[in-house]
Amino acid sequence: MKPFMDKDFLLDTPTARELFHEFAEKAPIIDYHCHISPKEIAENRSFDNITQVWLGGDHYKWRQMRSNGVEERCITGDAPDREKFQKWAETLEMAIGNPLFHWSHLELQRYFDYHGVLTGETAEEVWNLCNEKLRSPDMRARSLIERSNVKLLCTTDDPADDLHWHAVIRDDPTFSVLVLPAWRPDKVLHIEKADFAPYLETLGAAAGMEIKTYDDLKKALQKRMDFFAEMGCLVSDHSLDYVMYAPASEEEAAAIFRKKLSGETLSMDEVRRYQTVFMQFAAGEYHKRGWVMQLHYAPKRDNNTRMYEKLGPDTGFDCISTYTPSAELADFLDSLERTGTLPKTILYSLNPADDAAIGTIIGCFQNSDAIGKIQQGSAWWFNDNKVGMTNQLTSLGNLGLLGNFVGMLTDSRSFLSYPRHEYFRRIFCNLIGGWVENGEFPKDMRLLQKIVKGVSYNNAVRYFHFPLAAY
Amino acid sequence: MKPFMDKDFLLDTPTARELFHEFAEKAPIIDYHCHISPKEIAENRSFDNITQVWLGGDHYKWRQMRSNGVEERCITGDAPDREKFQKWAETLEMAIGNPLFHWSHLELQRYFDYHGVLTGETAEEVWNLCNEKLRSPDMRARSLIERSNVKLLCTTDDPADDLHWHAVIRDDPTFSVLVLPAWRPDKVLHIEKADFAPYLETLGAAAGMEIKTYDDLKKALQKRMDFFAEMGCLVSDHSLDYVMYAPASEEEAAAIFRKKLSGETLSMDEVRRYQTVFMQFAAGEYHKRGWVMQLHYAPKRDNNTRMYEKLGPDTGFDCISTYTPSAELADFLDSLERTGTLPKTILYSLNPADDAAIGTIIGCFQNSDAIGKIQQGSAWWFNDNKVGMTNQLTSLGNLGLLGNFVGMLTDSRSFLSYPRHEYFRRIFCNLIGGWVENGEFPKDMRLLQKIVKGVSYNNAVRYFHFPLAAY
Amino acid sequence: MKPFMDKDFLLDTPTARELFHEFAEKAPIIDYHCHISPKEIAENRSFDNITQVWLGGDHYKWRQMRSNGVEERCITGDAPDREKFQKWAETLEMAIGNPLFHWSHLELQRYFDYHGVLTGETAEEVWNLCNEKLRSPDMRARSLIERSNVKLLCTTDDPADDLHWHAVIRDDPTFSVLVLPAWRPDKVLHIEKADFAPYLETLGAAAGMEIKTYDDLKKALQKRMDFFAEMGCLVSDHSLDYVMYAPASEEEAAAIFRKKLSGETLSMDEVRRYQTVFMQFAAGEYHKRGWVMQLHYAPKRDNNTRMYEKLGPDTGFDCISTYTPSAELADFLDSLERTGTLPKTILYSLNPADDAAIGTIIGCFQNSDAIGKIQQGSAWWFNDNKVGMTNQLTSLGNLGLLGNFVGMLTDSRSFLSYPRHEYFRRIFCNLIGGWVENGEFPKDMRLLQKIVKGVSYNNAVRYFHFPLAAY
Repeated sequence: MKPFMDKDFLLDTPTARELFHEFAEKAPIIDYHCHISPKEIAENRSFDNITQVWLGGDHYKWRQMRSNGVEERCITGDAPDREKFQKWAETLEMAIGNPLFHWSHLELQRYFDYHGVLTGETAEEVWNLCNEKLRSPDMRARSLIERSNVKLLCTTDDPADDLHWHAVIRDDPTFSVLVLPAWRPDKVLHIEKADFAPYLETLGAAAGMEIKTYDDLKKALQKRMDFFAEMGCLVSDHSLDYVMYAPASEEEAAAIFRKKLSGETLSMDEVRRYQTVFMQFAAGEYHKRGWVMQLHYAPKRDNNTRMYEKLGPDTGFDCISTYTPSAELADFLDSLERTGTLPKTILYSLNPADDAAIGTIIGCFQNSDAIGKIQQGSAWWFNDNKVGMTNQLTSLGNLGLLGNFVGMLTDSRSFLSYPRHEYFRRIFCNLIGGWVENGEFPKDMRLLQKIVKGVSYNNAVRYFHFPLAAY
Repeated sequence: MKPFMDKDFLLDTPTARELFHEFAEKAPIIDYHCHISPKEIAENRSFDNITQVWLGGDHYKWRQMRSNGVEERCITGDAPDREKFQKWAETLEMAIGNPLFHWSHLELQRYFDYHGVLTGETAEEVWNLCNEKLRSPDMRARSLIERSNVKLLCTTDDPADDLHWHAVIRDDPTFSVLVLPAWRPDKVLHIEKADFAPYLETLGAAAGMEIKTYDDLKKALQKRMDFFAEMGCLVSDHSLDYVMYAPASEEEAAAIFRKKLSGETLSMDEVRRYQTVFMQFAAGEYHKRGWVMQLHYAPKRDNNTRMYEKLGPDTGFDCISTYTPSAELADFLDSLERTGTLPKTILYSLNPADDAAIGTIIGCFQNSDAIGKIQQGSAWWFNDNKVGMTNQLTSLGNLGLLGNFVGMLTDSRSFLSYPRHEYFRRIFCNLIGGWVENGEFPKDMRLLQKIVKGVSYNNAVRYFHFPLAAY
Repeated sequence: MKPFMDKDFLLDTPTARELFHEFAEKAPIIDYHCHISPKEIAENRSFDNITQVWLGGDHYKWRQMRSNGVEERCITGDAPDREKFQKWAETLEMAIGNPLFHWSHLELQRYFDYHGVLTGETAEEVWNLCNEKLRSPDMRARSLIERSNVKLLCTTDDPADDLHWHAVIRDDPTFSVLVLPAWRPDKVLHIEKADFAPYLETLGAAAGMEIKTYDDLKKALQKRMDFFAEMGCLVSDHSLDYVMYAPASEEEAAAIFRKKLSGETLSMDEVRRYQTVFMQFAAGEYHKRGWVMQLHYAPKRDNNTRMYEKLGPDTGFDCISTYTPSAELADFLDSLERTGTLPKTILYSLNPADDAAIGTIIGCFQNSDAIGKIQQGSAWWFNDNKVGMTNQLTSLGNLGLLGNFVGMLTDSRSFLSYPRHEYFRRIFCNLIGGWVENGEFPKDMRLLQKIVKGVSYNNAVRYFHFPLAAY
């Protein structure tokens, strides 16, 4: 029996252990997609207690607490932090097989040097230990990032954002980690929403122009993209219900835009056509700039109306949508390829049943523009666990070139999430190490080193054109 | 090499064996969803021979015999029982990897003390042995249940049923197992069917009132629910093509009801709207009474018209439907949550590709009403095998709190199906024991005991509020 | 650690090794579905170099090269063969976990006696070795087939084909392998395509009659089927987007046919109704003749328009379609079963998420016409790898009678693809050997031998009624 989460956690074979400890463990981290606040980095945020760190905004944990019958008062409500922590510890006891069990203990080990097990019974001990450690300057935002061996991270930013905090961080010589903005124009994509028109004013103000037509919108976005590019942006991100393809002309999109601004309600079909044309425009701009386009799709959000009205979005009430037609995704990408405007693209579906379809779609649009030009993103959100990652990696291996994969990102709001890169690397090394042990791949250490370092770090440097040296 | 199906069957590691033999093996059984006949329990049915027991009504076995090219005469026809048994034994030879292979041998071991292998060659020996044993009083319905350590079972009952046999069993001091009715109002849900109107008369008669309007229907059902509750009912069950959400008003539902009773044909959309409103009514009633709502969906039934006309329903001609939109399921549950009428709910999809979507949907509606208020049901029907159960348990572990799972049910028509609980427990202990052995969960026996006993028995007691003590 | 791809490759347990080496390894091969050219067999094609063999027409490899950023010039373009080979070798380095890695090395081992690893560094050595070997008469088409222990193969042929080369092969006493035609009438199914009308002239010419009506078409096809049957045909094949069921009358189909010939454009619904009626006709004809009907569905083809216009179909730009409604498939088969015209049928979906649905659908239409009358085909195309095959076999085991499976086919255009049968057999023996080792199936060598030989060879002989003795 292996000890609980020791140095060889998830590494079942000698080759897996060798690959991880020799090549993966010490590789630096690029976190090319996360939701960390640049302000908190700039201000070097500190934390009062472990509840603030862990339960302040983590809807993954909130969900499980509700699932354990915990009252909302002890989750997002006004219960004392110690009580909330107790409820979390008791919840964790039932979370056998859940990635939160591993993530929580990896964080306790790596940042708090606690190697026991958090349960209702040990909660008091862990509470005291963590809170004491949190008083150290080592446990402030910047130290957490640096100690985690992060070289670069991309935040998630609205086109109207002034990127003030990015400039502050960039101009601060005491912090060496690159913090780049990423472009996320969800609010101009979602024309069906009520805040579309008000948002255009915000965006216009940022771009220094009025937005009255679809042409104005495109011009304003181009200006903002130029600004984001100056600030180091190399990657965009879109959140979609599904990747749609409802072809229409620029003129039709402009007419739908006018209709919206005149206060009329759009039909589903009009929304789909506007979004298709808009995404084609956006993709073309990314292609011009050499940016990567990330498409995250298949969540169905805010399913619990009562709680949404209380707590707002991103509070733990989202689920997987099973409506993800592969045909529209393929046709959308083809519409870009045909016009020479297909950028480097990473596809993430929240529905794990899409793995195989995605794996075959990316193969249809590869070419010599880049190595692994079209990528399937790492197992995302609900799939970000040992099984989901193993399945995504295995699917990628079966259908494409796993060695060219750009690897892991945290997608996290927390400064303590970097052990998820370690978790991913352990799983990756275990998978390919297992193949080597089983005679399915040669034990050629030159080649294996290249693959492990590539997937851990180097492929991302090369793919995104990040200003970093290879590891 | 492990011996064939010995005491450590499916238990690959020392921890798995310890968990099973210490905590799971001796736990009593709650079979909260089955199709056993209460009359046969009351009358303490006996069996003439093993063909009667095994092939009398088991369409799982019939399917495989047809798949082996066996003539219908030897399956549901008038061939002698010995000949049918021979054909079954020969079929089993080809059923490598099929749960029927394991279930059949578990039943032979546990009830007949036969530890060999049933093949065409041993069929004669097994036939003689089983038939001799079947003459013992130990092999009558009640003994089979008691010997299996069953403490409680829920049958499946029509709202118009007088529950006569339930009363007989309840009032019989010689039989200590609780046999509770479960509420299955399929006939009032399926308004599209020809027997809807005639059934209303039956139901009206049972409720002591005439059913002429949708309001009457609801009143009649409430009266019957009150009666079922008096008889100990704590759980309902619905069979659905998929969980639909086509919102409509009570008035619209009443109009559709009237249209149906006037003999007109309903459109698909009318059926969907009636069913949505009806399910909302039913759910609200369950919520009031503290009943659990089970939703079984995604079968496509009676696909072979020629055989359906000969043999009727439930004869082995059903398949998995792939049309199971997660969005409608989420919206339906939200419509209940919004109105404060969402009961404890268990979701079962026959499509295993739905596991992940369900695992995320249940997480959207959990709260402090109950621990694990919304559950994903155990791997059902075609998925009720080692792979299907392992996948369902793993998915549940990844996405929710596996420790709160209410566990196994047989869904069976047979008195010999209880080893499926053993089968499930072996698979469960093997899964989590493997995690412990692999350092993925601590070997904390207090916690593991709680989890294993919980999933085997205690969680169901707590969840359904069954009048039983914890184990 | 096991050596790289040695004699026990993929055989993890003693029982797996015993089953493979005793029963599977030496079993002859039936390749009942492939795309080999009968002309190349008749003419006993030879090859100049390994690039010609491997990269001449293999779009599986082209895809991966594009994925590695290789220029099209070095894939399908005019780069020198040595350069193309180098690019392929470098691509293979990144293909960890890909079946091409295994297939390539199995081919190097079995046909070229090369037991090293092909990488960019060894490419020169492998190039020289292979090209020298290719000069031997042992490496011409017929020898490759015979040395691979192939007893029978079915090509894929258009109804208008004169089967000249089949006759030449049949009449040549120096070549003993049976090369049978297979009937693939895609061009008359796809009424929506521009080449439908011109093709009818070709078909009419082959059948010696004019095709002006739908009735003419059916008569012409019947004549051609009679001719194919004379030439030994026992199996048909259809490529479908999905298996549709849009019932219509013969008269409607005839009217749609007329409309098409008059030059009008058909609606999607008309296409679906014509195709349904046509497939019913075709199935009835197969049923009469005792032919097997193969339905291959769920690809979405030619997704990259730009490359399609350059290179045409089957060049590596296809993906998996996720639109595969199980309901229409079941209803289509029922429409045949009801009219007594359901032939032996093999279903292949390119979407692996369909495995469970297919496994339950085939169970609805089994009867005593044949053992395993309705089959799920072997893991196809993108799923033809260790994981895909293991999943398909496991699903088949869970849901049906794995012992009756008709087993593997290559679906290949290459004379070097026969080791894929070996690959399949290793995976199959490993799967069931593992069950035996784990106590899940008895170590009854009589039974295991029957199963392994059956799935490797004998089941196909029995199922297709091939004129071959059992092994």
